[in-house]
Amino acid sequence: MLILGVDPGSLVTGFGIIEVKGKQYRRLTSGVITMRPADSVAIRLRKVYDGLVEVIDVHHPDEFCIETAFYGKNIQSTLKLGQVRGVAILAAVHRQLGITEYSPREIKRSVTGTGAAAKQQVEYMVKAILGIKDGFKKSDEADGLAIAICHAMHVTEPRKKFRSWESFIEEHPERLKQ
Amino acid sequence: MLILGVDPGSLVTGFGIIEVKGKQYRRLTSGVITMRPADSVAIRLRKVYDGLVEVIDVHHPDEFCIETAFYGKNIQSTLKLGQVRGVAILAAVHRQLGITEYSPREIKRSVTGTGAAAKQQVEYMVKAILGIKDGFKKSDEADGLAIAICHAMHVTEPRKKFRSWESFIEEHPERLKQ
Repeated sequence: MLILGVDPGSLVTGFGIIEVKGKQYRRLTSGVITMRPADSVAIRLRKVYDGLVEVIDVHHPDEFCIETAFYGKNIQSTLKLGQVRGVAILAAVHRQLGITEYSPREIKRSVTGTGAAAKQQVEYMVKAILGIKDGFKKSDEADGLAIAICHAMHVTEPRKKFRSWESFIEEHPERLKQ
Repeated sequence: MLILGVDPGSLVTGFGIIEVKGKQYRRLTSGVITMRPADSVAIRLRKVYDGLVEVIDVHHPDEFCIETAFYGKNIQSTLKLGQVRGVAILAAVHRQLGITEYSPREIKRSVTGTGAAAKQQVEYMVKAILGIKDGFKKSDEADGLAIAICHAMHVTEPRKKFRSWESFIEEHPERLKQ
């Protein structure tokens, strides 16, 4: 399975595709779509949409996942972030990909074990999990891969846990009619 | 000239196209794109994008204008509004339309003469300017038309005012070197 993770931002949008084979995760591609502060809103949104559509058309991921917004920022930057998220999600819609959202906390916890991890910890663990030796141009690139790893853990782990009814009942005895 | 005005919203997006011939404004079409609260973000964004692309492909407007966001709302609704704005602007980008933004205050002032006008005043004046007898299903429809009227006044009026250098200097004596 190929998973595309996207970390939208009003100036930099990070993305990464990982290939998942059982417990093996491998980076297929990753990068950033950067906008110049002087770019009009039309140019910015076209860059993000076209950039993601191109990544999808070249690598054909099976799933699309995106970070839910961080609600602590000011209202004007939230609006700009919303615009970028909108066209990023639309790129996935237009290419018929399943869309899943994860909170920054969930992503950090999946990758590092703690929801309050620092950016450096996330980057360190992304490299360790995917066996990446070289650095990233921007932390947004690592964030895109982190979102993809988070999704991989969410979609593959429950299946292993509940391979059979016996294992499911063992985990959830309260679901059994007495 | 045909002008498409769009009033984006997280649940209802209003739109209207007016035909401008000199000082004559006429409604070509208007309506709303409504989303159900149960719709996923993917379905919402697709509805707005597809709806606007359809309107553009049927009526071929020359210009696209949109309300800038109202920055007084809470941060979560601003994010949702941003997402809708993003795909609305992208629809215009994909159909090669010129994009102009107007603040709610500018729109109200253009249509009613006062930037602090109530919704009912805007609706009343939109009907009066366009000679519309019947009512609107939702006020967002009137808002879409109001944005188009605002743009029509901005693109046609300055040309009349400064037909010649003489009229420009008359209007701006401070620009003249003594």
